[in-house]
Amino acid sequence: MRIGVGVIGAGTVGGGVIKALQTNHDQIAHKAGVDVALVHVADLRQECLAEFDLTGVTVSGDAEALINDPAVDVVCELIGGTGVAKTFILKALNARKNVVTANKMLLAKAGVELCQAAVANGVELRYEASVAGGIPIIKALREGLAANRIEFVYGILNGTCNYILSRMTYDRLDFGVALSQAQALGFAETPPDLDIEGHDTAHKCQILASLCYSTQVPLDSVYVEGITKVTRDDVAYASEMGYLIKLLAIIRAVDGGIEARVHPTLVPKTHLLASVRNEFNAIYVKGDVVDATLYYGRGAGRMPTASAVLADIIDIAKRGNAKAPAPFVYDKPRPIRNIGQVVGRYYLRLTTNDQAGVLGKVCTILGEHDVSIASCIQRDPHGKEHVHVVMMTHETAEAALRAALARIEKLDCIEEPTHVLRVLG
Amino acid sequence: MRIGVGVIGAGTVGGGVIKALQTNHDQIAHKAGVDVALVHVADLRQECLAEFDLTGVTVSGDAEALINDPAVDVVCELIGGTGVAKTFILKALNARKNVVTANKMLLAKAGVELCQAAVANGVELRYEASVAGGIPIIKALREGLAANRIEFVYGILNGTCNYILSRMTYDRLDFGVALSQAQALGFAETPPDLDIEGHDTAHKCQILASLCYSTQVPLDSVYVEGITKVTRDDVAYASEMGYLIKLLAIIRAVDGGIEARVHPTLVPKTHLLASVRNEFNAIYVKGDVVDATLYYGRGAGRMPTASAVLADIIDIAKRGNAKAPAPFVYDKPRPIRNIGQVVGRYYLRLTTNDQAGVLGKVCTILGEHDVSIASCIQRDPHGKEHVHVVMMTHETAEAALRAALARIEKLDCIEEPTHVLRVLG
Repeated sequence: MRIGVGVIGAGTVGGGVIKALQTNHDQIAHKAGVDVALVHVADLRQECLAEFDLTGVTVSGDAEALINDPAVDVVCELIGGTGVAKTFILKALNARKNVVTANKMLLAKAGVELCQAAVANGVELRYEASVAGGIPIIKALREGLAANRIEFVYGILNGTCNYILSRMTYDRLDFGVALSQAQALGFAETPPDLDIEGHDTAHKCQILASLCYSTQVPLDSVYVEGITKVTRDDVAYASEMGYLIKLLAIIRAVDGGIEARVHPTLVPKTHLLASVRNEFNAIYVKGDVVDATLYYGRGAGRMPTASAVLADIIDIAKRGNAKAPAPFVYDKPRPIRNIGQVVGRYYLRLTTNDQAGVLGKVCTILGEHDVSIASCIQRDPHGKEHVHVVMMTHETAEAALRAALARIEKLDCIEEPTHVLRVLG
Repeated sequence: MRIGVGVIGAGTVGGGVIKALQTNHDQIAHKAGVDVALVHVADLRQECLAEFDLTGVTVSGDAEALINDPAVDVVCELIGGTGVAKTFILKALNARKNVVTANKMLLAKAGVELCQAAVANGVELRYEASVAGGIPIIKALREGLAANRIEFVYGILNGTCNYILSRMTYDRLDFGVALSQAQALGFAETPPDLDIEGHDTAHKCQILASLCYSTQVPLDSVYVEGITKVTRDDVAYASEMGYLIKLLAIIRAVDGGIEARVHPTLVPKTHLLASVRNEFNAIYVKGDVVDATLYYGRGAGRMPTASAVLADIIDIAKRGNAKAPAPFVYDKPRPIRNIGQVVGRYYLRLTTNDQAGVLGKVCTILGEHDVSIASCIQRDPHGKEHVHVVMMTHETAEAALRAALARIEKLDCIEEPTHVLRVLG
C-alpha cells in the first residue's frame, strides 16, 4: 500500500517537505506503516524545483492538475496567502483529497469554511505546522490533553518578536537595532509588520483558541498589540522589578467566556516562559486534569515546519481507510471577552516633567478608579527634562485603569502618553 | 456508540481516572466522538471505592471478571508491579481487549512480550502514562516527531530526584535533609530506593529508548547511577562552574549503536532543562528534521497521570473499529553501547590531604591517559585535614578516565574515592 503526497509550492516549507520525505523515507514508512511517496510537485519556479532530484515524480506548474492527479492522496498546500491557496484547498477537499497546510493566516480567516468543506467531503484538513512550527502543539491540545478542560494557554508564537525582545533584554539593544539584526539574520521579513505588530501571533492565537474551546473565534475579536512601542527602558524597568517582556498570545476561559489576546507581557523571571530565548517558541498550557505543561521548539524555518507537515501526512497515512475524525469547530458559540473586561496587574511608565507632587496627583486619580499601586520606581532626574515614573498596579479591571489613564493624560505634569504593559498571572 | 472502560485498581491513578471520567464526561465524549463510559471497576479495597459514586457501574473484587465483562472495551491496568499486573494485561490482550497501563516497571521488563501479545490479538497496548506522567511525550515521539530520526533525548523523568536536587540547589540542603522533606511532602516513597537509586528513571529510559529506535533495549543494558552520592559540595562547585546537577536519562544514537544511561549530570545553567525545578519533569528531544524540542509538566500524581491514561483511552475510542496501529518494537537489534564507550566531559571531585604537588601528580596521570583539564577549583585549605580539588575535563572517553582514576586512587595524597559526574553536551 502507498500514500501519494502532492506538494503545491516548493519554496521554503514545501522544499523542506520534499527534502525530508526523500531523506527519511524509510523512517517515515516505518512510522506510517505504509509507503509515503512524493508523487507530484506543483510550482512554476524552476529555481525551486532545480534543488531536488524529482525522478519519478510528476512535476507541473499547475496546482489543479496536482489536485486531480489520481496518484495524489494527500494535498499539501504550502504556498501561503489567502487567495489561490484557499481556492486550491477547497478544490482539493471537494475532490475528496486530504489536505495538509501550514497556512495560519488563511486558517485564522477562513478556518470554519475550510473545516466544513472537509467534513462535507469526509476527508481531513490538518494544520499542525500552522502554529509554532515543529512543536506538536495542535496534537498535544487535540489528543494529548483531550481529557482536559483547558484553563489557559500562554504562547510565545512568533520567533521574530522573541528574537528582538531577547536582543533588547540580553544585549540592551534598542528596538530598531534589534529589528535590523533580526532581518540581517533572516529571522524577520521585509516589511516586518505582520510579525512585530502582532498579527502573525494573532492568527495563531485564533487557531489555538478555536481548538481549545471548540468554538468559532472571529479573528477581529482577538485583541492585538505588537512590540513596536516597547523600549529599552521598559525592558530595564521590568528587569528591575523581576520580569522579562515577551510577546504572548493569551487564551483563557473566564466566566463562561473566552479571552483571546496578543500583547507584550511582563513574565516573571522564574517562569519557564522567561527561559525561552531568541527565535524559539513555547506554549504553556494549563489543563484542569494535567495541571501545567509546556511545549518548546522552533516555531519557523524550513525543516522544523516540514517536520510538522510530515507528522500530519503520517497520521493521515496511518488512518488508512478509516473514517476521518471530526474537525475542531462545532457550533457552540461562546462569548469572546473584550480587552476592557480583562482583570490583571499592569506596568505603567509615565513620562513627567518632574513637577513636584506628580506622584500624588497620579495616585489620587488611580485611587479614585480603584487602581492601587504595588510598587514604584522613580529616579532622581539629575537635571533631565523628562522623567520616567514606573508603577506596578495590584489587580484591576483594564477598563478602570483606562478610565484613570484618560484623566491622567490630561494632567499638565504628564508629557507623553503613558506606556501600559500587562503582567502575566 | 459507546466505549466501555474497565479500571483494575482504584488507588491513586485509578481513582484519578474514575474521577476525571466522571467530571469531564462531556469534554471526553466530544473529543472522542463517542461516549466513553466507566462500566466496571475492580478493586478489593472498599475504602478506595467508597470515594466515588459508582451507580450503574459494575464493581467487583475480581479483575478477571472485569476482563471478561462484554461491556468492557478498554482495560486499564493501574495496580502496578510485575506480578498479577502482567497476568491481567496478558489475559486482557488475549481476550482481545485494548489495554492502557501506567506500569513502567512492567513495560521496561516485559514490554516486548506484551506488545507481541497485543499484535497477535489485533488490539492495542498503550502506555502514555508510563513515562513523565501527564506530559504527552510518548505521543510526541511516536506521532508528533514521526518524520524525524531522533538524535538524542535528555529526560528529567523522576520528580522525587528533581525535587531533592532542587532543594539541595536552591536551599543548600544536604541530601538526607532534602530527602526527608520530599518524603514529608509525599513526593518520595518509603523506602525511596527505586527513585533515588535511579531505577525508576531507568525504566522510563528503557521505554523511551525502545520507542525512539524501534528496537529492543534490554533493561540491564541501561547504565544506572542514582543521586545518593551527590553532596551539597558538588552542587556548590557545579554552580560555581556554571552548572546545575540534574538526574538525567540520556538516550543517543551514536555510530550505529544506542546509548541509554541514567546518572546525575551537570547541566549548563543556560540550558532550558536547568529551569525545570522541583517535582516537575521535562524531556528535551532533538530530531534531525525538527531540531530541539522540549516537553514539560508533572511527571507523577493522581490527576496528571490520569490525564495521560485518558488520552490513550480517547485515542482508542476515536479509532473505533479501524485496525490497531503497529506497536513500537520491531526486530532490528541495534547494539547498546556500554558506559566505557561514552565520550564526554567530566566533573571530578578529589579529596586530598593537601600534600604539596597533588595537582601535579593527578594531572600527570590524567595526561598519560589523554585526559586534559579544562578548569580547576582548589581552595585554600584553612587548616582543614581534607581538601577538595575539583576539575572539569575536556572531552574524553570514559574508559580512559576510569583507567586514570584507578591509578589516581592509589596515590598517597588521595583520601577518598574521587566523585565523578558527567557533563551534558
